[in-house]
Amino acid sequence: MGKKIEKIGVLTSGGDAPGMNAAIRAVVRACAYYNIECVGVYRGYQGLIEGDFKMLTARNVSNIINRGGTILKSARSKEFRTKEGREKAYKEIKKAEIDALVLIGGDGTFTGGMVFNQEFTLPCIGIPGTIDNDICGTNFTIGYDTALNTVVDVIDKIRDTASSHNRLFFVEVMGRDAGFIALNAGVGAGAEEILIPEEDLGLDRLLESLKRTKRSGKSSSIVVVSEGDKIGKNVFELADYVEEHLPQYEVRVSVLGHMQRGGAPSCFDRVLATRLGVKAVELLLDGKSNLMVGLINNKVETTDLDHAVKGQHEINKELLRVSDIMSI
Amino acid sequence: MGKKIEKIGVLTSGGDAPGMNAAIRAVVRACAYYNIECVGVYRGYQGLIEGDFKMLTARNVSNIINRGGTILKSARSKEFRTKEGREKAYKEIKKAEIDALVLIGGDGTFTGGMVFNQEFTLPCIGIPGTIDNDICGTNFTIGYDTALNTVVDVIDKIRDTASSHNRLFFVEVMGRDAGFIALNAGVGAGAEEILIPEEDLGLDRLLESLKRTKRSGKSSSIVVVSEGDKIGKNVFELADYVEEHLPQYEVRVSVLGHMQRGGAPSCFDRVLATRLGVKAVELLLDGKSNLMVGLINNKVETTDLDHAVKGQHEINKELLRVSDIMSI
Amino acid sequence: MGKKIEKIGVLTSGGDAPGMNAAIRAVVRACAYYNIECVGVYRGYQGLIEGDFKMLTARNVSNIINRGGTILKSARSKEFRTKEGREKAYKEIKKAEIDALVLIGGDGTFTGGMVFNQEFTLPCIGIPGTIDNDICGTNFTIGYDTALNTVVDVIDKIRDTASSHNRLFFVEVMGRDAGFIALNAGVGAGAEEILIPEEDLGLDRLLESLKRTKRSGKSSSIVVVSEGDKIGKNVFELADYVEEHLPQYEVRVSVLGHMQRGGAPSCFDRVLATRLGVKAVELLLDGKSNLMVGLINNKVETTDLDHAVKGQHEINKELLRVSDIMSI
Amino acid sequence: MGKKIEKIGVLTSGGDAPGMNAAIRAVVRACAYYNIECVGVYRGYQGLIEGDFKMLTARNVSNIINRGGTILKSARSKEFRTKEGREKAYKEIKKAEIDALVLIGGDGTFTGGMVFNQEFTLPCIGIPGTIDNDICGTNFTIGYDTALNTVVDVIDKIRDTASSHNRLFFVEVMGRDAGFIALNAGVGAGAEEILIPEEDLGLDRLLESLKRTKRSGKSSSIVVVSEGDKIGKNVFELADYVEEHLPQYEVRVSVLGHMQRGGAPSCFDRVLATRLGVKAVELLLDGKSNLMVGLINNKVETTDLDHAVKGQHEINKELLRVSDIMSI
Repeated sequence: MGKKIEKIGVLTSGGDAPGMNAAIRAVVRACAYYNIECVGVYRGYQGLIEGDFKMLTARNVSNIINRGGTILKSARSKEFRTKEGREKAYKEIKKAEIDALVLIGGDGTFTGGMVFNQEFTLPCIGIPGTIDNDICGTNFTIGYDTALNTVVDVIDKIRDTASSHNRLFFVEVMGRDAGFIALNAGVGAGAEEILIPEEDLGLDRLLESLKRTKRSGKSSSIVVVSEGDKIGKNVFELADYVEEHLPQYEVRVSVLGHMQRGGAPSCFDRVLATRLGVKAVELLLDGKSNLMVGLINNKVETTDLDHAVKGQHEINKELLRVSDIMSI
Repeated sequence: MGKKIEKIGVLTSGGDAPGMNAAIRAVVRACAYYNIECVGVYRGYQGLIEGDFKMLTARNVSNIINRGGTILKSARSKEFRTKEGREKAYKEIKKAEIDALVLIGGDGTFTGGMVFNQEFTLPCIGIPGTIDNDICGTNFTIGYDTALNTVVDVIDKIRDTASSHNRLFFVEVMGRDAGFIALNAGVGAGAEEILIPEEDLGLDRLLESLKRTKRSGKSSSIVVVSEGDKIGKNVFELADYVEEHLPQYEVRVSVLGHMQRGGAPSCFDRVLATRLGVKAVELLLDGKSNLMVGLINNKVETTDLDHAVKGQHEINKELLRVSDIMSI
Repeated sequence: MGKKIEKIGVLTSGGDAPGMNAAIRAVVRACAYYNIECVGVYRGYQGLIEGDFKMLTARNVSNIINRGGTILKSARSKEFRTKEGREKAYKEIKKAEIDALVLIGGDGTFTGGMVFNQEFTLPCIGIPGTIDNDICGTNFTIGYDTALNTVVDVIDKIRDTASSHNRLFFVEVMGRDAGFIALNAGVGAGAEEILIPEEDLGLDRLLESLKRTKRSGKSSSIVVVSEGDKIGKNVFELADYVEEHLPQYEVRVSVLGHMQRGGAPSCFDRVLATRLGVKAVELLLDGKSNLMVGLINNKVETTDLDHAVKGQHEINKELLRVSDIMSI
Repeated sequence: MGKKIEKIGVLTSGGDAPGMNAAIRAVVRACAYYNIECVGVYRGYQGLIEGDFKMLTARNVSNIINRGGTILKSARSKEFRTKEGREKAYKEIKKAEIDALVLIGGDGTFTGGMVFNQEFTLPCIGIPGTIDNDICGTNFTIGYDTALNTVVDVIDKIRDTASSHNRLFFVEVMGRDAGFIALNAGVGAGAEEILIPEEDLGLDRLLESLKRTKRSGKSSSIVVVSEGDKIGKNVFELADYVEEHLPQYEVRVSVLGHMQRGGAPSCFDRVLATRLGVKAVELLLDGKSNLMVGLINNKVETTDLDHAVKGQHEINKELLRVSDIMSI
């Protein structure tokens, strides 16, 4: 149905994630393989408005599969939220004869794409690229696995010094609305407690648990805290609170911050990004639109963009329980 | 059914894999959580025969979640393949009052367990720990993800020098009977060709493909070869053959070898090992036996040990196709 | 002169540093090699006071050369600053028949040792173990090289995301009184500006320089700030100040914190620690005391402890200039 | 003396080394800083002959400080060894109005430069870039520190599996004529024996030492062997020999190969390369020629190219002795 696809645009938008370059490479090479053109759009939707485009060939994406960040850059665009902005973008798309878009990003990216698609019926496919793993319709988002390894690697280092000095560390990791990073990296790093927005442990139970930890003979402890934790205090207030109520502990805080967004992607993220990038192009060539590609049970599957954005990617209750058992 | 479980033995057997220690820790702590005893068996089935046991408490497994190898050591045991050997083992088990076993390893490990279980009806649960990912009943075996990251990290380094000198590298990776590591790490490392036992590309097509690669303007190339590749030549012969037929290439060989078995496990492998370790204990407490725990569609599931060993964990055909598209 | 040395005590004190375990291993094995006994003292001077000792053999220090932290733990001891505390410590030493001490740490550690040595004439040798590199009498302290690699590795990750979003990052690194880490890691990470306590750039020149950077076409920038920078503002105030005066920049802050103290030591730190550990034992056996061992021009040399503490390890002016040239 | 320098050419030649890109960046930016032009010469002396040049500005070398390999590529040139080849090269240099050369590489590179300089009196400065550290006039060559970290990191992984299976590993590292990598990485990795070309241990003493190691209670062992070891057998023959004479050992071999040449450079190598690159340009502007820049006692110093090539960079006898003591 619709026009034959002869030129595909690709953009990255929202917070960047390791593996976005691998996804871009896959889209570009799949286009080359199927003998259609590929246009890179710089700085996400803002570049779409400004016509900041560049033709990309298979050779342009050599040696980027292992690089963090995104060669297409990313940006937030207020202008794209206005009707005028989107009309400008559409004009540039027509001028450049782009027939369809591949959108790499998170739910903000997909929402923008859906609105645009509704107004101008341009075919578009979404690829989930965000370290937060908070997208419905895929077991894993691109960048999430790498971020977990980064966090676990840093906490391994922090544990070295925590253990040398018998200290308690509060380590804040990314995840404003979702505790995926905190829960998985916390289990992977052997954290004694994990505080996530999806579950309010409560201050009393935290103190109780830390007291028990001390009694059990552990000399040092790590508490992993999600940015978006709802316990009612930020991580520094939390540390002060605990130090005040449990003077037997010497408490330190570490906020990991943006390093979690960078670095060479893990093999998992590279393979995931490559598979999803190829599938996105094939879906467009197949006349499909408004879908997100994702990995479910180790197979590439599709979901309505609408569901990807509105659905709830639930935290793993079993893993919460496992984490509890491990902290004995 | 059967005797109440009050003491569980745990052993690692076969080739070691990163994350085995995380699995041991999980088994030990789950035992502590459920108030039963846990006994570590050293050097796999050989240690079972010799009664090389040690009581393990939650504190004994502190700070091992991030260590490669296995604190329980691993070994191959010829003696356990004899009836006499297994009878000795059973006597030691009785003496130590061990009620059930958790077996961490690959198909050799599980086969040993099944035979033993048949003869002496001791409950046992298997946990898949091998870098090869060649076990049925789980999407991922423990150690596989870490091995992929190790391989990709090394090939990234090799590509630096391949690219500086415009060379072609043959990189041999582990996988005697299965191409999982070669295929996934090959895609992750952006290899131009991937040779695996499951698919015989043929020498002619390899030459053809490398010629095309050269013509397409690539200055350097990586071919990932699985140990068990069936193309009829070992990796050094293959390199000679290619250099002879394609003199435009300067060819080098790198055999990665045992480094693929070691190193700090990735977050994925640590979390996987932790979840499977807990589940193994809970299954035994629940009266179950002769099962392997695994991860399917991101959930912990069980499979008959028999099926885990005899079933075929098929290579991903879609990924083979993706790999082809990427090498354009 | 003095009593024959037959038993040596070794302790780590102050902030821990990667490579301390390699130094402990070297001291223990050198003792074994020279057929004398070695006693590990736990938790620095506090453990000395409490008699928290353990005999260490060559096998006790297997597989620790690659571990961050210190197996002997570290602590600050208020009690050791009192005459009473030191007398208790001396009694414990006599009781344990320890003839001499090897002290691994920074200037606080050495000062404690000198006072103790003055009062009780116990032979002692210092080994410089601190990530700060702020000790006189050695080109490099143990842990410094590893900390530099950790910082550079993290800033590489931050640059990925800085570059994707065209952002300016302020990255705070350790170094309360010395800018060694900031200056070297800043040059190594290709930072656009480096703020260290030894040189007050001034806010105006910082703004000027950042304006110039923007004009020169750089899309993202990294400013590395030493903890102890004297520019009069902490790193968050600095970021706010710059964002206010240079609205063309989107500014972010990252405080690296304690991860800089941990992790597997680099080869350089392991070799350094091993050489210094052996030499410390040999000096004691040779009747020497009150010296620090260090590396000067790639040779192991000695310095009076007094000079090591009071001398000034000057920042490298040439490197400051090089850093300026590179930020063009 | 001589013509005013207004345009500098820079090339990399011989085996590539991590940090070469950092050196290129430093040369290019120092030229920009001093307001002179910089020309990149591709593929070493071969590119000089073919006039394969590209103007490089400060922006062209952004984001390469952390990359392995060399953006200028490297190659061996037979043609440059002929008078005709060098005459062609000189013509291209004249045509491009290049006034002086910076040569990044090892002794082959410097020898080529000296011959060329003698014939055509073009000013040239050498920068030591090789992982082998076999150059006189500098404590460290660029790439050496990174290679050591790569080797130590891999041996840490191998030890994990060696220790799980109680095995003896022979690990071959680079260094055809010099044992620097083997000796330093061997000490850093805690190897039980180190075999280097500078010292012939002899097969008998190797067996003796391995027997002693076994008796001392070590369960696994690592022997690091330099490529150029003179013990009269290659590493596989050596392994067979040992397995035959010491059946108590299960022996494995690992040849690390080209991965040692790649990877992101360590902070040390980046800073070293940056300092040497700046100094090279400043020396040329100062009218100097035929010198190599190096690091001696942590200061940038110069040496005659002739001495750099012909002098002997001696192995550290003290470190050999330290290695012996550690293997107790």
